[in-house]
Amino acid sequence: MNDQLTEIQERVLHHQDSTRVKIRFNDTDAMGIVHFKNYMVYFDDGFVSFMNSIGGNKPIEQFIYEGFGLGLKHVDITYENTAKFGDYIIVKTQIEKIGKKSFTFFHELFRESDGKRVALVKATRFVMDLNTKKLRDILLFFKEFLEE
Amino acid sequence: MNDQLTEIQERVLHHQDSTRVKIRFNDTDAMGIVHFKNYMVYFDDGFVSFMNSIGGNKPIEQFIYEGFGLGLKHVDITYENTAKFGDYIIVKTQIEKIGKKSFTFFHELFRESDGKRVALVKATRFVMDLNTKKLRDILLFFKEFLEE
Amino acid sequence: MNDQLTEIQERVLHHQDSTRVKIRFNDTDAMGIVHFKNYMVYFDDGFVSFMNSIGGNKPIEQFIYEGFGLGLKHVDITYENTAKFGDYIIVKTQIEKIGKKSFTFFHELFRESDGKRVALVKATRFVMDLNTKKLRDILLFFKEFLEE
Amino acid sequence: MNDQLTEIQERVLHHQDSTRVKIRFNDTDAMGIVHFKNYMVYFDDGFVSFMNSIGGNKPIEQFIYEGFGLGLKHVDITYENTAKFGDYIIVKTQIEKIGKKSFTFFHELFRESDGKRVALVKATRFVMDLNTKKLRDILLFFKEFLEE
Repeated sequence: MNDQLTEIQERVLHHQDSTRVKIRFNDTDAMGIVHFKNYMVYFDDGFVSFMNSIGGNKPIEQFIYEGFGLGLKHVDITYENTAKFGDYIIVKTQIEKIGKKSFTFFHELFRESDGKRVALVKATRFVMDLNTKKLRDILLFFKEFLEE
Repeated sequence: MNDQLTEIQERVLHHQDSTRVKIRFNDTDAMGIVHFKNYMVYFDDGFVSFMNSIGGNKPIEQFIYEGFGLGLKHVDITYENTAKFGDYIIVKTQIEKIGKKSFTFFHELFRESDGKRVALVKATRFVMDLNTKKLRDILLFFKEFLEE
Repeated sequence: MNDQLTEIQERVLHHQDSTRVKIRFNDTDAMGIVHFKNYMVYFDDGFVSFMNSIGGNKPIEQFIYEGFGLGLKHVDITYENTAKFGDYIIVKTQIEKIGKKSFTFFHELFRESDGKRVALVKATRFVMDLNTKKLRDILLFFKEFLEE
Repeated sequence: MNDQLTEIQERVLHHQDSTRVKIRFNDTDAMGIVHFKNYMVYFDDGFVSFMNSIGGNKPIEQFIYEGFGLGLKHVDITYENTAKFGDYIIVKTQIEKIGKKSFTFFHELFRESDGKRVALVKATRFVMDLNTKKLRDILLFFKEFLEE
């Protein structure tokens, strides 16, 4: 790996993001708490926020319109506490590992009111060219995304 | 309007469909009942079932892959009763009115257990060519869809 | 209607709220735009924001935990434009009409980027005591909610 | 562990269930495929179907109304293929492991059209008395659920 890619890797691995999500009534279920599926929506907010705070040359939202998908390969969620309507969730995000064709995010979700962790997520993503269905090299993707 | 189109209009206006939807836990909210947004998903099941039972030459699901959108212009929902996890909903669907560029569905949603009506929906849809963004003539759309 | 209730009615009818909603990737569908059901979630954000900006003595989110439901009786949505991933929606909310046992909200949803209106909503709600299943008188509900 | 509980454990571990889920338009996202969060809804359909086909003395849906929650502690999903509007998913479910206070389901999700596996899920659940917030012993829960 050349120096420039090493530098990009360091930059990406050191970046940390924190974003705040408001729980909607619509996120709850008949147990009175947030339905387990919605944590997938919250950590995805963390992913979007992370990608938009790392200093790329365009909003991550734009990639989909340019024919790139940032899909999921694997998700591992541990539920530790519950959240309810009116709570705010703080999603802390960093990248744990960068592979050749995939990269793994580590998200921690906290209940803002008392700081208790509600969930822990590892999510492995890939970058796909939706036209050719080919996977992009992750560091080359970040090189392109991060350079002016 | 020529005879053939009049005949198609009659056929479409006389068609009736009934489909059965199982309520998921995930459809409920903290009041213990189905969240109001999910009735939109149930009447859409009624729409899909109606279009697939009228005798078209392909599944309605295929239109989206051929570049056609059957979008919504207007929805009017009256909530009359509630439904909960474990209930089944019967969605009865017919077309109330066919305009030049839009058509209006009338859906009634019933709780299967006791036959009580839970909601009443009028939903006006259009057919759009997603490439040209042009609206299709509704009767010509049905002519094409219904003929062998 | 006594003077105090007239005053409350005036206050409620003159209140206006504006809130901002970020469109998630998860809100889109295979047509590449926000799925029609999600406008129900956005105007509900407008409802929550309205109730929390009018100056009540507690967050509206708390009512559900005290046994009150603010349910929907009728919703009328007109779709005028589309929204996509990355867009922000501005939801403008006011109350159009206060009846004895129900009240009707008027919501306008705008695309922030160009100010175009994407949807228009009239939503009639009631306040129910979830234990007794009795409907509350709307002005008395606001009297209690608004007084110190 | 006494003979009766051993027998129950054997019965539960040998039970297998298969259920069929229709993909809704509403399940897709702007990439034209099922959004990753919805696999959580599909494997939950597998869970409900499994519990209702094992021969319990009441529908699993009823537990929530009797004050029991069958919550999630941990979910591990591997995404292998995609699914789209119009597809049917076959969810195959069995229990992989029964612990003292939790039990782990193994779900495989297949695309009906070509038999390709779209996802693989391990989901660890617990049974909680929602009033006391105490976890139930899993085998005792099944003993009660399975006996006449």
